Amino acid sequence: MGQVAKVGARVEPPPNRHREILETAARMICEKGYEGASIQQIAHACGLTKAGLYHHIQSKEHLLVEIMHYGMDIFEERVMSQVEPIADPLERLRTCMAKNILMVTRDRNKEITIILHEHATLTGKELKRINTRKKRYVRFLERSFSEAIDAGQIRRIDPKVATFAFLGAVNWIYKWFQPGGHIPEEQLVLEMQAVFFGGLEPQ
Amino acid sequence: MGQVAKVGARVEPPPNRHREILETAARMICEKGYEGASIQQIAHACGLTKAGLYHHIQSKEHLLVEIMHYGMDIFEERVMSQVEPIADPLERLRTCMAKNILMVTRDRNKEITIILHEHATLTGKELKRINTRKKRYVRFLERSFSEAIDAGQIRRIDPKVATFAFLGAVNWIYKWFQPGGHIPEEQLVLEMQAVFFGGLEPQ
Repeated sequence: MGQVAKVGARVEPPPNRHREILETAARMICEKGYEGASIQQIAHACGLTKAGLYHHIQSKEHLLVEIMHYGMDIFEERVMSQVEPIADPLERLRTCMAKNILMVTRDRNKEITIILHEHATLTGKELKRINTRKKRYVRFLERSFSEAIDAGQIRRIDPKVATFAFLGAVNWIYKWFQPGGHIPEEQLVLEMQAVFFGGLEPQ
Repeated sequence: MGQVAKVGARVEPPPNRHREILETAARMICEKGYEGASIQQIAHACGLTKAGLYHHIQSKEHLLVEIMHYGMDIFEERVMSQVEPIADPLERLRTCMAKNILMVTRDRNKEITIILHEHATLTGKELKRINTRKKRYVRFLERSFSEAIDAGQIRRIDPKVATFAFLGAVNWIYKWFQPGGHIPEEQLVLEMQAVFFGGLEPQ
């Protein structure tokens, strides 16, 4: 109880402490799996007792929900809200790809991204809420591809297939890209835009 | 022991019984996570007792290893070995995309594919063996892109980025594609080839 009281008694929690907990928990869950990572282990990794961790979270399932919403918050702030105002649909899509790639390549967010895309542990209402947020992005991309087609900027392709080819190419990056490796992230952005928007056949 | 003896005593196991077990186990692991799916539950889903299941598998970890190797077996048989002999590199890549997509869209293999790509639970020697098999495919694609560039069939892009954009676009399909939905799988193949190889800008 002494330790718990000490943690609970801290009057001013460090700024962004809650975010740190979500990021640390995301790392543990990626390493050991959702079922494999115990609350005890997550607490230890956060430098907290189990009871101390429960000052910050409601339950393990709720922690997963929070990590996913945190991932969507970062994503909407750094990607969607930045590109939604761009009037030109092709420019909007190209910039969106760049910003989405940079979000995935930045190590700090990697585990959050993985959890957002790989953990289907959530069910019912909570899963629905996360999926609704994800679908907003899917619809935004589909709409942008349709607008680019209507404007004659790109060929007539199925906007849904284009959208998921875009998402697959971009989201898969966390599976192979090594930050600090032989491809700098700016180069990755340019190459991906070239492959995807330029097409592979000679112009 | 009666039940175990009964299972163990079956002289001729149904053909493909081992494959069925791997496929059923894959479904359970996808549903509940590797840690979440108990051997008891996997056995039950296979219509076996726990002891009966242990006639077929060595351990839970080894079961996961077997599922992954089974996934790679199917993949190499239906995709790689079919396209490796194609002399024309662009034709090889286009056909490879088609065959890889059809492998992902076929419901029966979906869970195997997911486990192959999402479960990092394996460590050490076993993980290394699976990764070596995956890398063979990555190198094959990189080599094919390089050959297509050298032959002037496609623009000068980074073969590694092109390879992973290809893999991302194709493998992401299991996350969104609904077999029997409004896009037939043959149409998906054609649209993906158009997006990827045709490029999105007007020709």
